[in-house]
Amino acid sequence: MTTRTIIRGGRLLTMAEGEAGAVVSEGTLVLAGDRIEYIGPGDVEARPEDEIVDGRGKLYMPGLVNTHGHAAMSLLRGLKDDVNLQVWLQEYMWPTEAKYTAADVRAGTELSIVEMLKSGTTTFMDMYDHMDQVAEAVEASGMRACLNRGVIGLCPEEVQRAKLEEAIRFARAWNGAADGRITTTMAPHAPYTCPPEYIAKFVEAAHELDLPIHTHMSETAREVEENAAAYGVRPVEHLRRLGVFSRPCLVAHGVHLTDEEIDILASHGVGVSHNPGSNLKLASGVARVPALRKAGVRVSLGTDSAASNNNLDIFREIRLAALIHKGVSGDPTAVPAAEALRMGTVEGARSLWLNDVGTLEAGMKADVIAVDVTGPHYQPEADLVSHLVYAGSGADVSDVWVNGKQLVRGRVCLTLDEERVYAEANAALRRLRG
Amino acid sequence: MTTRTIIRGGRLLTMAEGEAGAVVSEGTLVLAGDRIEYIGPGDVEARPEDEIVDGRGKLYMPGLVNTHGHAAMSLLRGLKDDVNLQVWLQEYMWPTEAKYTAADVRAGTELSIVEMLKSGTTTFMDMYDHMDQVAEAVEASGMRACLNRGVIGLCPEEVQRAKLEEAIRFARAWNGAADGRITTTMAPHAPYTCPPEYIAKFVEAAHELDLPIHTHMSETAREVEENAAAYGVRPVEHLRRLGVFSRPCLVAHGVHLTDEEIDILASHGVGVSHNPGSNLKLASGVARVPALRKAGVRVSLGTDSAASNNNLDIFREIRLAALIHKGVSGDPTAVPAAEALRMGTVEGARSLWLNDVGTLEAGMKADVIAVDVTGPHYQPEADLVSHLVYAGSGADVSDVWVNGKQLVRGRVCLTLDEERVYAEANAALRRLRG
Repeated sequence: MTTRTIIRGGRLLTMAEGEAGAVVSEGTLVLAGDRIEYIGPGDVEARPEDEIVDGRGKLYMPGLVNTHGHAAMSLLRGLKDDVNLQVWLQEYMWPTEAKYTAADVRAGTELSIVEMLKSGTTTFMDMYDHMDQVAEAVEASGMRACLNRGVIGLCPEEVQRAKLEEAIRFARAWNGAADGRITTTMAPHAPYTCPPEYIAKFVEAAHELDLPIHTHMSETAREVEENAAAYGVRPVEHLRRLGVFSRPCLVAHGVHLTDEEIDILASHGVGVSHNPGSNLKLASGVARVPALRKAGVRVSLGTDSAASNNNLDIFREIRLAALIHKGVSGDPTAVPAAEALRMGTVEGARSLWLNDVGTLEAGMKADVIAVDVTGPHYQPEADLVSHLVYAGSGADVSDVWVNGKQLVRGRVCLTLDEERVYAEANAALRRLRG
Repeated sequence: MTTRTIIRGGRLLTMAEGEAGAVVSEGTLVLAGDRIEYIGPGDVEARPEDEIVDGRGKLYMPGLVNTHGHAAMSLLRGLKDDVNLQVWLQEYMWPTEAKYTAADVRAGTELSIVEMLKSGTTTFMDMYDHMDQVAEAVEASGMRACLNRGVIGLCPEEVQRAKLEEAIRFARAWNGAADGRITTTMAPHAPYTCPPEYIAKFVEAAHELDLPIHTHMSETAREVEENAAAYGVRPVEHLRRLGVFSRPCLVAHGVHLTDEEIDILASHGVGVSHNPGSNLKLASGVARVPALRKAGVRVSLGTDSAASNNNLDIFREIRLAALIHKGVSGDPTAVPAAEALRMGTVEGARSLWLNDVGTLEAGMKADVIAVDVTGPHYQPEADLVSHLVYAGSGADVSDVWVNGKQLVRGRVCLTLDEERVYAEANAALRRLRG
């Protein structure tokens, strides 16, 4: 028989649809194998082999979902901040990334996985190079991820061809791997880094492999202007014409969008990964999230990389999403707390085409986090959803399960040796800088 | 002889002027009595009675300064969010606050003190009612504070007179109390809640008592318009004419300011307490911080109350201050990390007219916090100032000293019983709601 984990006495935040997305009650949560067996107010009789967890003082909720990032770039956290975007890219990011070896990708990804797990993220979308390293780190860590080889196509044709083949090989090899925890997509990096005919080849491959597409789009005003100058249309229409939206598609950023572009995204079911921290820090602007949501576009949350954020705590993106759209629009009802929380959980899961994670319900995959709600910022206990969004953070996360397996216990990672990961990240940075 | 605390092996962030405000080195920090005796790279020989602290893995920096808030309102955290400002005030905040007893003020203030201390704030500015309770809580907790009875003057003349007398009595009684940890100011609540002639009486009292003035100003566009309609001038000129700026003065918010108004504030040495979290959440807007700083106005950071923030972690305001002005202006060099950190430390201290806190230097008051920099979000160690601002939070604070006395050790408050404080806050909320 499957050993179960029976968590008693905790507060339960299911994020399930029928419960207005945000209901906190007290009860029992049972994980069996990789699934949730029971969640509800009753008790469940334990068998001798079951693990019993005392949930008092904790709130159990779905693991957070980070729908856009580049995990390996955590090595570049704080390397340079607060400079012009072109200076930052051309003088700091690109020259350092050019020196990246597979081992650096592994070191940076492991660091990001530790940071994400410890702050309550159980699933992440990742776009980078040396993706076998990323997939192996995900497999070993126990995390869930949607991975892709992000391809920049500003290169000779034979290099383009090799990159595309590599992206296809990776997507084919790892889709469904690690007990189904890993899925893959095709990922032309962005309309401004891939020629149109090259993007079309990714669309073709996505159709052949029956995979979704992930790409950057309309992050800065400048790239939108340049797209219009080069191709006669703005990025949304450009990608639509290239067939990108004929596949299930998630675009990152979507900061600079017209009403017409929002309608195109809505009508094609294109999701937007909103990255408020990174967009603010790089001075890209503020995405039109209330308008996107009103039009029916699915909006989820991403950190982008730790080089432009500079952390991977989705709770902070949830809070930013709940705050900045109020401040910028002048409407204090914009993006209420419970909606921001949905963006960081269930909407994130659906944005990555995952239908069995993102809520706590019987039969769903057991991706669960425990939040310690005994601290001063959770007092008095007027509204735990409000407290989570406006006062909570990843630092409150004490325990994490993914696919039914406990990966963090009492704020300590069980599958990755934190000390080793930090030492290797520091060693990698020294080498990259030297 | 004075017992000393000798902290060895920690990283030291002095925030001292000559060191560009942000230098991290490794060395020794010695606290003796209420002052810093030594800070530097050398070692200091210990005497038998000295306490020795192992500072490895910690960064020692000046305690944070919160320059605007209403501590007692933490009881209302999460009571209602995400509604129109007038609904929030008239249906939720004011009716509940009207029921506040002195005991409620004490309970809310103690909860806020615990939250502030545990997240690294060592000094706070507080404006509320029943201020003897606040002052007694500050005295008992060991914290440093600048306190005032915030007076709303929309009431009959005899009530106005009684409130003014109470404000004067409080300011006189507590200025310099608790070994100098408590200072006081006069505080007419705001131009829109106090008739002009009543504000003038506070100015007169401030001159007589030789005290500064603290007030709310230009938080919302609506109050600015109403001020212009009622008095023919916008709030800045209104307060200038009433003599408010003839005293040392700190205004809270200052969201809606013209260039001319910024010049008036600069020329009168008026400080602005920037409250980005609260301003965003209440949809008041985004203060013109880069313009204020360029004009030479001293800008510090405040949380406002936990009812509108909804937390009291100044690290989060530091991060917001470093992020939102970039995003809104489109300039990624706006409010660099080190400047945001100065706003939360030394600029905060100077804004409260405190010249011997806010930096770590020999001879300064020993208001020191230790930040645990061993977590994943501080790796790799490229730039600890960047990491503190963009990735850190109050949850990383492990130890706090104020006036040389340790108030938090290993994340536990030493002077207030956290369990009792939380229980009393919850009991108070139940009574207020019932």
